[in-house]
Amino acid sequence: MIVKTINVNLSDHRYPILVGKGVLGNAGTFLSRQGFTTPPIVIANPTILQLHGSKLMKSLQSAFGPSTIIKIQDGERFKNHATLMKIYEGMFRVHANRRSWVLAFGGGVTGDIAGFAAATFMRGIPFVMVPTTLLAQVDSSIGGKVGINVEQGKNLIGAFHQPSAVLSDTEVLKTLSKRELYSGLYEVIKCGAICSKPLLQYIEQRLPEIRKCQSVAMEHIILAAARIKADVVASDEKESGMRMILNYGHTVGHAFEAATGFRKLKHGEAVAWGMLAVLEYGRELGVLEPEATEKLMRLIQRVEKLPAIDGIAFEELWKALVHDKKFRKGDIRMIFLRRLGEAAIFNGIEADSLRKFLKRFLARSHDFV
Amino acid sequence: MIVKTINVNLSDHRYPILVGKGVLGNAGTFLSRQGFTTPPIVIANPTILQLHGSKLMKSLQSAFGPSTIIKIQDGERFKNHATLMKIYEGMFRVHANRRSWVLAFGGGVTGDIAGFAAATFMRGIPFVMVPTTLLAQVDSSIGGKVGINVEQGKNLIGAFHQPSAVLSDTEVLKTLSKRELYSGLYEVIKCGAICSKPLLQYIEQRLPEIRKCQSVAMEHIILAAARIKADVVASDEKESGMRMILNYGHTVGHAFEAATGFRKLKHGEAVAWGMLAVLEYGRELGVLEPEATEKLMRLIQRVEKLPAIDGIAFEELWKALVHDKKFRKGDIRMIFLRRLGEAAIFNGIEADSLRKFLKRFLARSHDFV
Repeated sequence: MIVKTINVNLSDHRYPILVGKGVLGNAGTFLSRQGFTTPPIVIANPTILQLHGSKLMKSLQSAFGPSTIIKIQDGERFKNHATLMKIYEGMFRVHANRRSWVLAFGGGVTGDIAGFAAATFMRGIPFVMVPTTLLAQVDSSIGGKVGINVEQGKNLIGAFHQPSAVLSDTEVLKTLSKRELYSGLYEVIKCGAICSKPLLQYIEQRLPEIRKCQSVAMEHIILAAARIKADVVASDEKESGMRMILNYGHTVGHAFEAATGFRKLKHGEAVAWGMLAVLEYGRELGVLEPEATEKLMRLIQRVEKLPAIDGIAFEELWKALVHDKKFRKGDIRMIFLRRLGEAAIFNGIEADSLRKFLKRFLARSHDFV
Repeated sequence: MIVKTINVNLSDHRYPILVGKGVLGNAGTFLSRQGFTTPPIVIANPTILQLHGSKLMKSLQSAFGPSTIIKIQDGERFKNHATLMKIYEGMFRVHANRRSWVLAFGGGVTGDIAGFAAATFMRGIPFVMVPTTLLAQVDSSIGGKVGINVEQGKNLIGAFHQPSAVLSDTEVLKTLSKRELYSGLYEVIKCGAICSKPLLQYIEQRLPEIRKCQSVAMEHIILAAARIKADVVASDEKESGMRMILNYGHTVGHAFEAATGFRKLKHGEAVAWGMLAVLEYGRELGVLEPEATEKLMRLIQRVEKLPAIDGIAFEELWKALVHDKKFRKGDIRMIFLRRLGEAAIFNGIEADSLRKFLKRFLARSHDFV
């Protein structure tokens, strides 16, 4: 096992993130060293269990004896109340109690809902994240945000509940579709864009290895992105200020996602579009130098041709944008890059200027892929 | 307004408890001084709104403008998922967001469910407790335990979410039924039993004034009990050790409640029965001196004749007891008094000894009222 560890240090909680090849097969040993003594309640979807379940379950078995598995369906549309109830029921069925713990095995949806179940079961029990997508490994598994979607919107019911450990195996990424892999890669690029020029350079140089999911390269970018997220989260656990920079490209990205009914674009692809838009807007406003702007745009474009967004009706996009909970009317805040590797929050963006820009951007979006 | 304040100091949160005559009418002024600037979402039941709503709402109106009111039905059986959904929907209807706040106006059920809604709405928004029963003022409003009941049991889904303030008006207690008032008084007696002999002596001397809900006496006992609960909670926020002593009389009390289907006994009455049982068991084991035992028993008995429990089938009681989540098989822990005003956790109580004792106690329960 080649494993590296990052420690997340929060005000009243500290937890490790393990990244490497062979993490799954050593999960039991590691978690028993972390102090767990009983088998977890594993929450996972059937696909991930079939692909990578045996390695994890065998390891848990030899450390703790047989675990309970609660199967849930994958996909954002199942991150809802009905699935949450199914999880609670599964937990009650095996007489889970305040000393039980949950292991979330899957992508972002699994982590969010299993984490929320753990946050609210008997006022909160420990949980461990075993993220199986690149996006979950670098983003949603870190930071303690858990929750479900409701009719009125995504993640509107939720909690902050920090995991006891995050276990990211680079091997599981090999079974991801290229689109899912790249969707995660765009979030890694975002981390580089806001906090680390060296990470951007690494991706530029190692894109061929990353495309092939080569372990050393994956370990490097996951560690770098996880470190950035962990540091930002530690400095602003409840998302009052600094943590906002993690939303770089997200405000506009979410609007692209929403305006296409959350079907056409993967989350990371929407963020990539969001970054392209904000980069272009920043160039117009003179916030980031043209050379740096183009350098980052080219990197985003090199990953893969993004799905087209020129079918979006502008008014739909604008409606989605002004409904974004992060978007306050009359006082628009946006995150721009000052230089590659450094983001800053800008207040007082004029709604009219942004509106006009986005209309132009949408009209010539094909120039950006 | 005659108001006294207690401060609850937690590791990362601090909040005031206000107790006195006229607190309701000054809620708006006080809460705006606490930093609130927008009207709250008030969650309350129709009865409390009719009895005491105008005073509170007028005060909120003049401080913040018109508030939203979400009406929920009162009673433990409505502390469920359906009511929680109703609250969320009401919040979405008025476009509540992360800067909204909740004011829970009512007894323990209202506080628990409104607090859980606040804990989980957009990953947690602030809430203020305005408890209107003696039991809620001295117990459930303090400590941050919020949650709902599910089919499988009470409070099994929940969170720890600390209020921003607790506002306890002694005047609202005057409209409580005597049974509800006494139900709260038993919890006050419990606080005295575990932590404060002077509180027990005060109740002994002022029982006539307390029965009449005379403001000075009520303010005194609420402040004393709230102070005890706040201190214990501050020393053990997530209930890992010390906080257990607050459960004095509760393990057996819950079993009496459960064995009577949560209908015959009010919570405080069940706790009173639980204390009588544990006092008697403690006397048999030689933990508390006979004189002190009898003194406390007499005080409990003086409050009011408790509803009889001799109709309970012993096996039902035992089943309820061993299912209590606080009751570990093979390692029974119980809280006893060492002397009046001092509780201690005892490990290693033999199940067989307890079983035999409870059988005897139930058979001659009429001797204890």
